[in-house]
Amino acid sequence: MKRFLLAALTASALSSPTLAQRTPPPPPATVAPEVERLRDAALNDTVAWDIVEGLTTEVGQRLAGTEAEARARAWSVARLTALGFKNVRIEPYRMPVWERGAESAEILAPFPQKLTLAALGNSGATPAGGLTGEVAVFPSMAAFQSAPDDAIRGKIVYIGNAMPRTQDGSGYGAYGTARFTGPALAARRGAVAIVIRSIGTDHHRFPHTGTTNFPEGVKPIPAAALSVPDAEQLERIASRGQPVRMKLVLTPRMVGTRESGNVIAEVPGSDPSAGIVLVGGHLDSWDLGTGAIDDASGIAITAAAAKRIMDAGQPRRTIRVVWFGAEEVGGMGGEAYAKAHAGERHATASESDFGADRVWRFEVNLPTTAKLVADRLQTALAPLGITRGSGLGGDGTDIGPTIKLGTAGIDLNQSGWDYFDSHHTPDDVLDRVDPAALRQNVAAWTAMLAVVANAPEAIGPVTPR
Amino acid sequence: MKRFLLAALTASALSSPTLAQRTPPPPPATVAPEVERLRDAALNDTVAWDIVEGLTTEVGQRLAGTEAEARARAWSVARLTALGFKNVRIEPYRMPVWERGAESAEILAPFPQKLTLAALGNSGATPAGGLTGEVAVFPSMAAFQSAPDDAIRGKIVYIGNAMPRTQDGSGYGAYGTARFTGPALAARRGAVAIVIRSIGTDHHRFPHTGTTNFPEGVKPIPAAALSVPDAEQLERIASRGQPVRMKLVLTPRMVGTRESGNVIAEVPGSDPSAGIVLVGGHLDSWDLGTGAIDDASGIAITAAAAKRIMDAGQPRRTIRVVWFGAEEVGGMGGEAYAKAHAGERHATASESDFGADRVWRFEVNLPTTAKLVADRLQTALAPLGITRGSGLGGDGTDIGPTIKLGTAGIDLNQSGWDYFDSHHTPDDVLDRVDPAALRQNVAAWTAMLAVVANAPEAIGPVTPR
Repeated sequence: MKRFLLAALTASALSSPTLAQRTPPPPPATVAPEVERLRDAALNDTVAWDIVEGLTTEVGQRLAGTEAEARARAWSVARLTALGFKNVRIEPYRMPVWERGAESAEILAPFPQKLTLAALGNSGATPAGGLTGEVAVFPSMAAFQSAPDDAIRGKIVYIGNAMPRTQDGSGYGAYGTARFTGPALAARRGAVAIVIRSIGTDHHRFPHTGTTNFPEGVKPIPAAALSVPDAEQLERIASRGQPVRMKLVLTPRMVGTRESGNVIAEVPGSDPSAGIVLVGGHLDSWDLGTGAIDDASGIAITAAAAKRIMDAGQPRRTIRVVWFGAEEVGGMGGEAYAKAHAGERHATASESDFGADRVWRFEVNLPTTAKLVADRLQTALAPLGITRGSGLGGDGTDIGPTIKLGTAGIDLNQSGWDYFDSHHTPDDVLDRVDPAALRQNVAAWTAMLAVVANAPEAIGPVTPR
Repeated sequence: MKRFLLAALTASALSSPTLAQRTPPPPPATVAPEVERLRDAALNDTVAWDIVEGLTTEVGQRLAGTEAEARARAWSVARLTALGFKNVRIEPYRMPVWERGAESAEILAPFPQKLTLAALGNSGATPAGGLTGEVAVFPSMAAFQSAPDDAIRGKIVYIGNAMPRTQDGSGYGAYGTARFTGPALAARRGAVAIVIRSIGTDHHRFPHTGTTNFPEGVKPIPAAALSVPDAEQLERIASRGQPVRMKLVLTPRMVGTRESGNVIAEVPGSDPSAGIVLVGGHLDSWDLGTGAIDDASGIAITAAAAKRIMDAGQPRRTIRVVWFGAEEVGGMGGEAYAKAHAGERHATASESDFGADRVWRFEVNLPTTAKLVADRLQTALAPLGITRGSGLGGDGTDIGPTIKLGTAGIDLNQSGWDYFDSHHTPDDVLDRVDPAALRQNVAAWTAMLAVVANAPEAIGPVTPR
């Protein structure tokens, strides 16, 4: 009786165009029972949580190029070795290092009060005693860009722009320009400093840091992000119509060239000619939180999945897990990796660097010879609630340089809905990771690796996206 | 047809004991249409929001006894006068003032990292260069209290206790003891400093400050609250089994005796012999946020309601709005008020100092002669979703000393479910106030004042709760 009712309901649902759109398409391919078994077992994974908990607890923040990142590398080698990976090693490189100093902001007039902010990576410094100036308030990048130079020269520029929440995180690119290029533009136009509204979607009093860039020849000015409530407070204060005077203390500095490195571990495959399946995330973090979602989760998810494949027996392709260094401050780890390994054949590259919320979509950039691989991925991932997107896979700062060489890409996209609430803030700590969602990620990556590492098809180079 | 169905459903609901319990009791009394009109009009109030927005924007934090609190008093006199209140005045008093200094915490071993914390009010200071010690970790007050002295002497004591979320906020009293008395107990037993898990229900990286007390003869030690994630991080680190060494820098100081004051405004009544209806909240705030929920909302709600009664015509009883000073740091404003006005007849006293979430319950302590007043309150408040509680009204630090003199009390209880997420944190800012919930509060207080200020019954003294 129940089965009859269900069948009737299904038929009825399919007869409605609206509901039919929501009905997943039939599986385009069958997958081996072993893939399903590995995927479903991964829903009980504890390895990923232990990595996230361990790294964030026993190392904490690990800003690229600092002794904390070096401690993180040592921790990683020990952990990856203990997990049974082969060829565990550090591949070092050198990089310029920027370190945060003191930071505070204060409205001096018309309504004296302190504001919460954090310097942006590569920010210039104020004098130790601070810098005082009038604030030129621009509600958006467009307003800033269209303002005359004399509204900017000698001022502390403020740029507000409220980043919207999106599923795919696409707001970051669009609204992040205030951080990426605003400070250099303000410096060029004679501003003495710049504070931006944090590139974030929350309404809590956490500033969102992140790098900005001053091109060669542009002298860095002090540049910082106000928390969203503080940015809106500054706008409210300015809306009263009186000139706003602010005192800024920001004393970051470039401390010179230091060592950073990528940590690499492998599950050797039986067929070296089939190419490497590269997976990973980044080991470094911003200095304000402990980098739990950015990106302890990513390295944990990919390593936990690779270990599950390793424990199930030798795969056809070598799985290489790379915990990249120095992603946050410019992607030096990804560049160093691509340079060092350009001569090796990579089948695919995939990175997890978008938190630990549930994977909702996958996208590929695979050669036509490997079309069935994508179809099997669709079948294998569907029970986890993951659908196939129409974009091209291969996204990410760390795999970017390897992807550019023509490597095929497979992306497992986490939901970005809440990601920018705590991204780059002091609040990116273990409390932000949902263990159940983390396990769904491990299951998705395990299924992906089970399909891709053992695919009988050739997975050759592609036209880069 | 619809009416018939509704009637049938109601009858059916009443016939079920479970549902019957959820059906509000019939109104115990009728209220004047004017009360209902005033109450419903207040659901469109803008005055309360303007006060919260104005005070938090144009003054910001206003720690008791500081120049910021003095600016807040000047702001309040101007605003209350502009709103049309009579006898607007400041009643000053003097009080000892504690001010925050630098504050930082760092785990030195086994896993070096910074922790986020805030000094507790009345905390002692470390040397300017900081204090280093081994941490004695106690997961609860009970564990701390039962520990031998030599586990405490010379140590930095940590006390964890996870405050549960409750509707009525009752967890604060039970779990707040770690803050109220933990530091003095630790000092007595030879601890060099103490850090507690914040008395809060959130999992964000905001420390919750608040006063602690060192009795006469106990030398204050440095005392601070770690944010909940930092407290759990410390417990995780300690759980690894190695000794934990911490460096603390806390440089608060007592700056001497300063002026504070209560701001008073009135709606004069037609019958001075009927007693004063006292309402209000506190003007001072902690120094970390801008005190939007604690307690700009309370002063805004009570003043907005009083203004609505004033604008509707002269009430029988004088409504006195008091924006108390120095509540957070020891209730000096409430004490000063009770002392100065002990000779006046108060009909009732009520304060709003529990945020701006929806009022869900009211409780009274009224003389038997005024039983019908409570019944009319029940009728008037029911449409706002407010039910009558069985406890005794008259709760609150500011009205406490006046209540002790035998004044009747009426409480309108806000939901405490989320209150301790941001209570006493840097995140207590305008973003925490929901305008719709704030308006429901104004409607509740307007209805209460409409009933009580015009009640024909005598409202005389009561046995204090």
